[in-house]
Amino acid sequence: MKLNIEDISGDSLQNSNIELVERKGLGHPDSICDGLAESVSRALSKEYKERFGKVLHHNTDEVQLVAGSSEPRVEGGELIEPIYVLLTGRATKEFQEEKIPVDQIALDAAKNYIDSNFDKLSSEHFEFESRIGETSTDLKTVFSQEVPKSNDTSFGVGHAPLTPTEKCVKKVEETLREEISEVGEDIKVMGLRKDGKLQVTVAAATISSRIASLEHYFETKEKIKEKTESIIRNISSLEPEVHVNTADKEDEDSIYLTVTGTSAEMGDDGSVGRGNRVNGLITPYRSMSLEAASGKNPVIHIGKIYNLLAQDIAETIYEETGSFAQVKLLSQIGKPLDEPQSVEVETGTDRKTVEEIVDRKLESIQEVTEKCLRGEISTF
Amino acid sequence: MKLNIEDISGDSLQNSNIELVERKGLGHPDSICDGLAESVSRALSKEYKERFGKVLHHNTDEVQLVAGSSEPRVEGGELIEPIYVLLTGRATKEFQEEKIPVDQIALDAAKNYIDSNFDKLSSEHFEFESRIGETSTDLKTVFSQEVPKSNDTSFGVGHAPLTPTEKCVKKVEETLREEISEVGEDIKVMGLRKDGKLQVTVAAATISSRIASLEHYFETKEKIKEKTESIIRNISSLEPEVHVNTADKEDEDSIYLTVTGTSAEMGDDGSVGRGNRVNGLITPYRSMSLEAASGKNPVIHIGKIYNLLAQDIAETIYEETGSFAQVKLLSQIGKPLDEPQSVEVETGTDRKTVEEIVDRKLESIQEVTEKCLRGEISTF
Amino acid sequence: MKLNIEDISGDSLQNSNIELVERKGLGHPDSICDGLAESVSRALSKEYKERFGKVLHHNTDEVQLVAGSSEPRVEGGELIEPIYVLLTGRATKEFQEEKIPVDQIALDAAKNYIDSNFDKLSSEHFEFESRIGETSTDLKTVFSQEVPKSNDTSFGVGHAPLTPTEKCVKKVEETLREEISEVGEDIKVMGLRKDGKLQVTVAAATISSRIASLEHYFETKEKIKEKTESIIRNISSLEPEVHVNTADKEDEDSIYLTVTGTSAEMGDDGSVGRGNRVNGLITPYRSMSLEAASGKNPVIHIGKIYNLLAQDIAETIYEETGSFAQVKLLSQIGKPLDEPQSVEVETGTDRKTVEEIVDRKLESIQEVTEKCLRGEISTF
Amino acid sequence: MKLNIEDISGDSLQNSNIELVERKGLGHPDSICDGLAESVSRALSKEYKERFGKVLHHNTDEVQLVAGSSEPRVEGGELIEPIYVLLTGRATKEFQEEKIPVDQIALDAAKNYIDSNFDKLSSEHFEFESRIGETSTDLKTVFSQEVPKSNDTSFGVGHAPLTPTEKCVKKVEETLREEISEVGEDIKVMGLRKDGKLQVTVAAATISSRIASLEHYFETKEKIKEKTESIIRNISSLEPEVHVNTADKEDEDSIYLTVTGTSAEMGDDGSVGRGNRVNGLITPYRSMSLEAASGKNPVIHIGKIYNLLAQDIAETIYEETGSFAQVKLLSQIGKPLDEPQSVEVETGTDRKTVEEIVDRKLESIQEVTEKCLRGEISTF
Repeated sequence: MKLNIEDISGDSLQNSNIELVERKGLGHPDSICDGLAESVSRALSKEYKERFGKVLHHNTDEVQLVAGSSEPRVEGGELIEPIYVLLTGRATKEFQEEKIPVDQIALDAAKNYIDSNFDKLSSEHFEFESRIGETSTDLKTVFSQEVPKSNDTSFGVGHAPLTPTEKCVKKVEETLREEISEVGEDIKVMGLRKDGKLQVTVAAATISSRIASLEHYFETKEKIKEKTESIIRNISSLEPEVHVNTADKEDEDSIYLTVTGTSAEMGDDGSVGRGNRVNGLITPYRSMSLEAASGKNPVIHIGKIYNLLAQDIAETIYEETGSFAQVKLLSQIGKPLDEPQSVEVETGTDRKTVEEIVDRKLESIQEVTEKCLRGEISTF
Repeated sequence: MKLNIEDISGDSLQNSNIELVERKGLGHPDSICDGLAESVSRALSKEYKERFGKVLHHNTDEVQLVAGSSEPRVEGGELIEPIYVLLTGRATKEFQEEKIPVDQIALDAAKNYIDSNFDKLSSEHFEFESRIGETSTDLKTVFSQEVPKSNDTSFGVGHAPLTPTEKCVKKVEETLREEISEVGEDIKVMGLRKDGKLQVTVAAATISSRIASLEHYFETKEKIKEKTESIIRNISSLEPEVHVNTADKEDEDSIYLTVTGTSAEMGDDGSVGRGNRVNGLITPYRSMSLEAASGKNPVIHIGKIYNLLAQDIAETIYEETGSFAQVKLLSQIGKPLDEPQSVEVETGTDRKTVEEIVDRKLESIQEVTEKCLRGEISTF
Repeated sequence: MKLNIEDISGDSLQNSNIELVERKGLGHPDSICDGLAESVSRALSKEYKERFGKVLHHNTDEVQLVAGSSEPRVEGGELIEPIYVLLTGRATKEFQEEKIPVDQIALDAAKNYIDSNFDKLSSEHFEFESRIGETSTDLKTVFSQEVPKSNDTSFGVGHAPLTPTEKCVKKVEETLREEISEVGEDIKVMGLRKDGKLQVTVAAATISSRIASLEHYFETKEKIKEKTESIIRNISSLEPEVHVNTADKEDEDSIYLTVTGTSAEMGDDGSVGRGNRVNGLITPYRSMSLEAASGKNPVIHIGKIYNLLAQDIAETIYEETGSFAQVKLLSQIGKPLDEPQSVEVETGTDRKTVEEIVDRKLESIQEVTEKCLRGEISTF
Repeated sequence: MKLNIEDISGDSLQNSNIELVERKGLGHPDSICDGLAESVSRALSKEYKERFGKVLHHNTDEVQLVAGSSEPRVEGGELIEPIYVLLTGRATKEFQEEKIPVDQIALDAAKNYIDSNFDKLSSEHFEFESRIGETSTDLKTVFSQEVPKSNDTSFGVGHAPLTPTEKCVKKVEETLREEISEVGEDIKVMGLRKDGKLQVTVAAATISSRIASLEHYFETKEKIKEKTESIIRNISSLEPEVHVNTADKEDEDSIYLTVTGTSAEMGDDGSVGRGNRVNGLITPYRSMSLEAASGKNPVIHIGKIYNLLAQDIAETIYEETGSFAQVKLLSQIGKPLDEPQSVEVETGTDRKTVEEIVDRKLESIQEVTEKCLRGEISTF
């Protein structure tokens, strides 16, 4: 393993004139797919462990959501056509002459994920179909080895701490979702920092049964705006400029009303890996991995593990030293996961500390897996 | 519009110690989905123009491919289960009281795309299903305006010229696909430049009916390796280190044989937007857009247009001045497409030239659309 | 209307040498489809009445069940792949500018039907998909008329009382289902009367979790045999000859074990209209209608209504006079439902009584509809 | 085997006052499903024979057609949404360690069936999906036996010659389909004989591109009426009363126009076994089998074989003796197919001739299978 440490004074993005950050909230159709994919992987992993003592091969990182149709109305409305979700990917369906009810487990996990994480959106609004295929045999052999080996060059990246813009975008989504009851889980937040100003665009699906009138809707938008401004002022020194539901017009038919609190009910399809990266953000001005982490096997999928691990190393450096850190991990073909080809760290702290942290994290690389299995780590 | 020009001496990535570049070839399951999505959008656009004189609203950027299963054998083999493809997204299904056979057009376009672009893979190997929904009305109103306006902050990025590593990765995929008849269209190329060496990992699906024996297979791998080394030596000064089909073992069951020349026949699912960016590459060490350009409406989708336009501007600067350029475009909410909020250019050339080129390209922004409609521009 | 009365001394089938009667029990895959189709129609009818005061046009008599797969084991086992059910047919999806969530209603009704009528089989074992289409407009216009008119020649037939063989077959299915807890809802009973003997073949799915051993299974078969013989002796003077699960062999893998109590879990597909007629039986030695009554619109579908009405008239004649009656109804093109082209009655009772009953029943023809809507009448 | 011969002077239905006969033409949605099911079975049988020398177990008698939608217009129109067809049933997917591409064969056979048998309707108008499952193992063991054995009581029935009404109904459908170019393959013919009159109701889908005007449409209806009357007069002594497309109104929107010549393009779903019996007719005044013969395994499925064989025996008796014959076959549990439990023949000819014919036909029972495999026999 080669550890390259580049000594930097801080996060260079902070000094740039422009920064663009996006977060697709929990109920965005792409995030719903990420959440479903990860919950299916977690349920399969649990089942495999219970039956066989270890997590068998699977990657359930392919989910396609096809929007339904709805007729939201102030104070009510209803879903007209259900949301269709195709669960796919690959999993081990037979092991040691025992069949595993993969599709049944996936369907149960998907329904349970929706019912546990959403307020108005329910598994009853969905048609779920599972077409999870059988994995190819040669990948399964990987399981016989002690520590899984790479057969490809994979890449993971992470950084800490978040910039003020990144923090704001994340915080705005979380806060609006939790604190404004008229708002559903589908909140997209786009933050553009330019010349010391933070322009934030919020697209927030409101819940029609909780909107008493057109007037109430516009009051809710004002509430969203004020809350967003207040968050920005609280956690940054940036001057807020907030836009809410910019496609609205003045009549009931063209405001952002939904029955279920998500645009998946009408018109917005979704799939895995097109939304947030493992840090919960889309940051096009930074180095990003295109890896779709959600739904990947948490034991052997290098892309998933390296992204989560790079993030973990960066956060640990920051927590223990106070220095900004950006970490990139590259796998080595034919070598075990805990022997990356290179680890690049950009940080302001000393080499020794970095080495110690990187070594410690690589030694306990299986903790990333464990956290995934216990659902303690978010992949989107 | 604000034009920020940062004067740089060249592509900073060139000076970095590590560079990672990937290309998923034409027949990679994710690329198949990108190609299908774009071909459906193109067919719909054509139909709309013929019927109504303009391109109506649609985004067909959601395609899910579920792998089939196959039994490849040296000198033969066959497909056992067909590949399933779900075409989805949204399109205008009725306009001026005329219904448009959207699903039928999509199915025809998809079959035609496969039959026109692949050698052994045929539309007969697929089950196509179309669940393209109806677009929401308020988006359609956009069409009444002269130049479409943004209702969101969108981002596009492009650069030119490609680095030697990027050139190599692209060239290797194209050359192997065209020149080695034993190889199918599903070739994934990963390039890692480090310390002056270019490590290239090729995963190339071979066509079982053209592989006469296990020996022939290993000869083909050797041919791939030599061809790849020769390309790298020809177009760069980097020292090649080439790995081909690294998951292979020594028996017929665990080599990379396929009946159709793509892994979509067995075990590898795919979807839109998880593969190459509009320049045909995945470049995690660079600023990237997560936009899934393939299948998006080429007339009004800002994300698609700005990515293609940023690429076009960068290429034009490079062609006309010889300077490297990286271009970022940001849209302005409520403003027409040809009035971006900011244009950032990193280049070594003078401001006046850049201004002239940017102005010229913005004035003729509809050329991007025209090229998409004529299929003269690739989105993946 | 022309009433033809043929004076007969009794049911001629009684005197024939051979009689063949079959009943597919509640949990037979074809019956599951009949039940689902009818429950969807009933739920839609209820919704239409609540919203618009009358039952709008629909026919949901098309349901395809694709069996899952399972691994039943003595004392346990599990479902491996879910049962897939496609709900289809046509329904009014928009009326007076109000959209009706037809697919959502259908899915809810289907899940509810399974959960209310089966013991071990649950809606969780299913993947339901609804592809119910929009009805054609010209059929809707029918609703503007006072009494619906026929635009086709339709036919209904019924008889009462059942022969001893028919009674036995029906009673055996009901009794085994209710009284033997080891047996699921999927019981097919075939009765062949020949030379004074009643040969009954029972195919009864047992519930694996309630079968403690192979021995217990064969004891259960013996119990089924004895119970069946006892029923036959109780309600007929025929000599029983009973065969149970004739495809069994002596090992666990080839006995009729199921996890859910129905063969739909593995290997047996089903669809509407291929099972029992409206009297709950298949009687190939009698005049039968091929009409798939389940799921048809109970207000205007002549085939459904005439079969139920013919049955009702026959039963009423028998109840009020004690005479056997077989009734055939034929619709008249362009005439209201209550003006059939002909009513043929074979019975031993006098013309006046028959006329009075037929008139009375035709006058209150809407009672058939009402009973369907309240679920008081079985269609299979 | 017990041969019961009932001596009758002729077909008793001839003497009855009322006779009702229906034929669903080749392009009726139910018949399309029958045709697809049988073509899939034939293709699989062929493949099995080529690979293994015998027909392996399968039953592909489950097909669900979901209508598309269309916009027919005088002189043109188009299909708006494709017709969806789900192919299902069970088949042997692996035998002697060789996998058989069952779904692929089924899809190819289905497309080929449509393209070979229809004029305007093409496989391009369809979305085909195959979900054919794996057969259960214990049924496969049947193949080890010399002559397949029954494990159930099955029933087949046939008669010859057809009555004049039956002949007319069949002839009308065939003639209209072949001789009137404006008419598609979807022709439903209902014949009701009463008091010496034959009331025939024809529902014939016309092909919109061949209908030049509303006037032309009504001329076509007149042509259909005249042709039907002429057929009836030619082959019977019955007085014709013909109704054509009785649901028509006087405007273009409510006449029976179709783009493809079948109502499957819009609004009429279909499935297997709900249409014609193996003699091509639905005859509710006669003994009928509910068996869905189309798609059933032609080697071992008793229901299919006995219906075809009963028909064959009846026809042979009639051809060789000139006497009407109705034949019923009943299988015997545990006995080979060629040893039925009983053969009942109603005919006017002598016992010896009947015995000889029945014996001859049972001895060559495999000819029924061979004819199915060669496609020389129709099942609907």
